[in-house]
Amino acid sequence: MAADRTNPIRETDDEARRLVRGLIATARFGALAVIEPGTGMPLVSRIAVGTDAAGGIVSLMSDLSFHARALAADPRASILVGEPGRGDPLAHPRVTLIGRLEPVEPGAAQAEGLREAWLDQHPKARLYVGFADFRFYRLALERAHLNGGFGKAYVLTPQDIAAA
Amino acid sequence: MAADRTNPIRETDDEARRLVRGLIATARFGALAVIEPGTGMPLVSRIAVGTDAAGGIVSLMSDLSFHARALAADPRASILVGEPGRGDPLAHPRVTLIGRLEPVEPGAAQAEGLREAWLDQHPKARLYVGFADFRFYRLALERAHLNGGFGKAYVLTPQDIAAA
Repeated sequence: MAADRTNPIRETDDEARRLVRGLIATARFGALAVIEPGTGMPLVSRIAVGTDAAGGIVSLMSDLSFHARALAADPRASILVGEPGRGDPLAHPRVTLIGRLEPVEPGAAQAEGLREAWLDQHPKARLYVGFADFRFYRLALERAHLNGGFGKAYVLTPQDIAAA
Repeated sequence: MAADRTNPIRETDDEARRLVRGLIATARFGALAVIEPGTGMPLVSRIAVGTDAAGGIVSLMSDLSFHARALAADPRASILVGEPGRGDPLAHPRVTLIGRLEPVEPGAAQAEGLREAWLDQHPKARLYVGFADFRFYRLALERAHLNGGFGKAYVLTPQDIAAA
């Protein structure tokens, strides 16, 4: 445990930056938080997660999902990635990626190569990637909360996370 | 895929009810969505999850965590449980439990036996369950969104989920 338990945020260092980059690069799914239209409730659901050629955090979602409908009304979102292994789940590193999750318009520069990169990372998505109600989203990252295990909390900027 | 893809919510049946009860009974961790004070951003983080003697959904959290601070300002929350196994992570059942997540006051009827039940389910928590900044929370469940796999979405009531 950190010496000062009332202020558990540590100073960001290269180890924290590398850890977050690794969690993002290897993520294939995660938990998405959005705000539900009408009620204002925070809703969490499982989504597929991947990266584009620029290292950006992307997802593929159906327009029919609760979360896509919520994002259409309010793009503010966060995504938790980093899955636990054996032992205490809270001892395994995970990161909350906070920002705006918005559709990638077909034809936009960010759309180029996205489908191929996605299918490399998610081969089973070939079954539904072409459905009319599915589209890609990209996270405009504002900050990240890393929890590297008990007493190891960090707040990172997009600059911290951009590939070195 | 369901025949009517524009209305993907199915009618709740006993199989859906059993599936949600099973996901709750076996959950040891999950993803919590809360609303961040000040910014209003939806924040997701990993928490430990368990059940009390009445089958209620409980957690043990530090007052120092981002999510505990958020809940102190606004108890509205949802918790995702149901971990993926092999294959496409989106093919595995998971449920979003929606309601208010509030501290269990020591001495309240709901506190009785809670510590022992928690330690049965989370033996490693013995290391920190006694820390002054840790406390138990219980979810006052309002509804649940079950995703039983592609095209298998359900909305359940607390009555659907209460043990048969």
